[in-house]
Amino acid sequence: MTWSAPLVSTTGPVRIIGVGLLGGSLGLALRRAGIDVQISDISPVATALAADLGAGTPVDESSAEPALVVVATPPDVAAETVRHALDTTNAIVTDIASVKEAIELEVIDHPQARRYVGSHPMAGREQSGSLAADADLFMGRPWVIVPHAATDPEAVRMVRTLAMDMGAWVTVMSAADHDRAVALVSHVPQLVSSLMAGRLSDAPTSALELSGQGVRDVTRLARSDARLWSTIIAGNAAHVRDTLQALQTDLGELIDALEHLDVHAPDGSGYAGIAAVAGTMVRGNTGEARIPGKHGGAPERFAHITVLVPDTPGELGRLLTEIGQAGINIEDLALEHSAGQPVGRARMSIAPTRVPDLIRELEARGWTIGKAPDID
Amino acid sequence: MTWSAPLVSTTGPVRIIGVGLLGGSLGLALRRAGIDVQISDISPVATALAADLGAGTPVDESSAEPALVVVATPPDVAAETVRHALDTTNAIVTDIASVKEAIELEVIDHPQARRYVGSHPMAGREQSGSLAADADLFMGRPWVIVPHAATDPEAVRMVRTLAMDMGAWVTVMSAADHDRAVALVSHVPQLVSSLMAGRLSDAPTSALELSGQGVRDVTRLARSDARLWSTIIAGNAAHVRDTLQALQTDLGELIDALEHLDVHAPDGSGYAGIAAVAGTMVRGNTGEARIPGKHGGAPERFAHITVLVPDTPGELGRLLTEIGQAGINIEDLALEHSAGQPVGRARMSIAPTRVPDLIRELEARGWTIGKAPDID
Repeated sequence: MTWSAPLVSTTGPVRIIGVGLLGGSLGLALRRAGIDVQISDISPVATALAADLGAGTPVDESSAEPALVVVATPPDVAAETVRHALDTTNAIVTDIASVKEAIELEVIDHPQARRYVGSHPMAGREQSGSLAADADLFMGRPWVIVPHAATDPEAVRMVRTLAMDMGAWVTVMSAADHDRAVALVSHVPQLVSSLMAGRLSDAPTSALELSGQGVRDVTRLARSDARLWSTIIAGNAAHVRDTLQALQTDLGELIDALEHLDVHAPDGSGYAGIAAVAGTMVRGNTGEARIPGKHGGAPERFAHITVLVPDTPGELGRLLTEIGQAGINIEDLALEHSAGQPVGRARMSIAPTRVPDLIRELEARGWTIGKAPDID
Repeated sequence: MTWSAPLVSTTGPVRIIGVGLLGGSLGLALRRAGIDVQISDISPVATALAADLGAGTPVDESSAEPALVVVATPPDVAAETVRHALDTTNAIVTDIASVKEAIELEVIDHPQARRYVGSHPMAGREQSGSLAADADLFMGRPWVIVPHAATDPEAVRMVRTLAMDMGAWVTVMSAADHDRAVALVSHVPQLVSSLMAGRLSDAPTSALELSGQGVRDVTRLARSDARLWSTIIAGNAAHVRDTLQALQTDLGELIDALEHLDVHAPDGSGYAGIAAVAGTMVRGNTGEARIPGKHGGAPERFAHITVLVPDTPGELGRLLTEIGQAGINIEDLALEHSAGQPVGRARMSIAPTRVPDLIRELEARGWTIGKAPDID
């Protein structure tokens, strides 16, 4: 199947400044819809590459006046690029950097600041280069629009239209609220993952061999690009620090509680700290449950069924095809390989009401499944 | 397909004390191999349920003397249960609790301690109840054997045989090394995930709506059962505290660095702290890369390709079947659903050498894929 983004009504020309992953992806999607796209990048190679990929036509003297300028540079040069775009065009100007307050602060005193509105498409693949550009990158992702006090409503309308044309899910908030939110749900999780993984950097190999799925999940984000993320975090240092300090307080309380936990204490006082440990776990249960589920709705609870799958090509496909033939939709799927065994485990999440059907279908076809599904 | 564990040479009777998930699963696997299994549990309901499920026969006065006793109780009562088993049988006795030093300390002065060896099958589903018992639970998972100074080699041999019969991957280490290792790769990742998720518990809903895959990965473990995990962590408090304190130091240094990061500082000193932020990220890269890959080997690096998949039954199966038909094995797969869109993203990991084949096959069949794979 080929999926095409529904084009609502963006009209060009759109000028994209900075054609890395995000700028390039935007260009591809707009070009696919037949819109005139002008591209420029501080790197001539990047410009030529993006043009070759079909992301737009390099800006030159003959370029028409753009209706919309999208600044897709790294965040540390976004503000000056926005100001330059306000100076040199009459277009609506937006930037798509992942931190908004710092840029707004540098742009807001520009005499043409009403033509500027910040935005942030949360495309979540910030570690990749321009070659990974993908016209469907923004589809279904949040795209935050961040008007300042003097933003022209026309600027908001135009960027909202662009975001919707890209298939994104649009939300509007202030720059401060945005930066506080991404500190909490993006920047601090990144740092927490990196800090945890950093503790593994000098651990004995025999300890690492005991790694299971849990530590893999927690440290997956730690793969992220260090240079890019340092820049992002530098741009949001105050909010990130606030959240890390709250975390530091929680961590300190937990460490204090562990100090009092000695299950061998001869006076039987050894479980004095356990309520604080349990409190940490319970607050974690509560917080995790608040993360919205797919389709932007409330978190959904699914039943999970684990099936053993031989580690040979096609077996996983056969499993999922057979489930599809039964008319059951898999909401999520995690594959787990096992040390030294030619078999993996596929943990599938499905609607709890479909559990009996799925078990019957799988057993009829000889698959080995866990005895009972767990539901969370 | 049905997968049966290769039975090497465990001979019964095996007595299992505590028939929750782990004890019940062990019973099922041993019974499947035709071995005499005796079960007991402090809860008569749990005993009857496990017997009904086929995990063994309840212990009574007529039960034969066991060759091996497996203590599968909660960790806080494991030591006294081991001592009681040493008192009342002439069998080799092991326990399968997830923390080993505290139990060893309480058992080691027993006059029959030579018949005891601790062990820890890392089955990773500790949150589920006895109904989830699964004869294949231990397959391909690490099973750590923890001899103490006076352990009889016959005890190690017998537990090793049991573990191998269960399809587990056996490793031997001291109780202290084991507890330090699981603090690092299991207990602290659990607490880090809970602490991070706890910060979401009173966050504005508008912030949570911006949650992407990253925060979901980091907080997935925070779903774990609070009561069970509090007990596990209490039993390993000293090593967990040591690791958390090291993390606290790293966190404090990061917070200090952020204090000095003000990208708007008029004197241009605003990037003074960025090296420390980048250092946190780089150490995280290093640590994450040390986690072993599947089959217990060195971490493998895969290419990742993302394909858009309509959110209807069977489409994911069709995708994977078509990949299987092309003879390409998927090493890992992560599904990501998008807010408000009838389409998901399947991110597949494959051997980098198979990338051109896979892209050709997918494009020939009309799937929409990212422009270029990224490799990590």
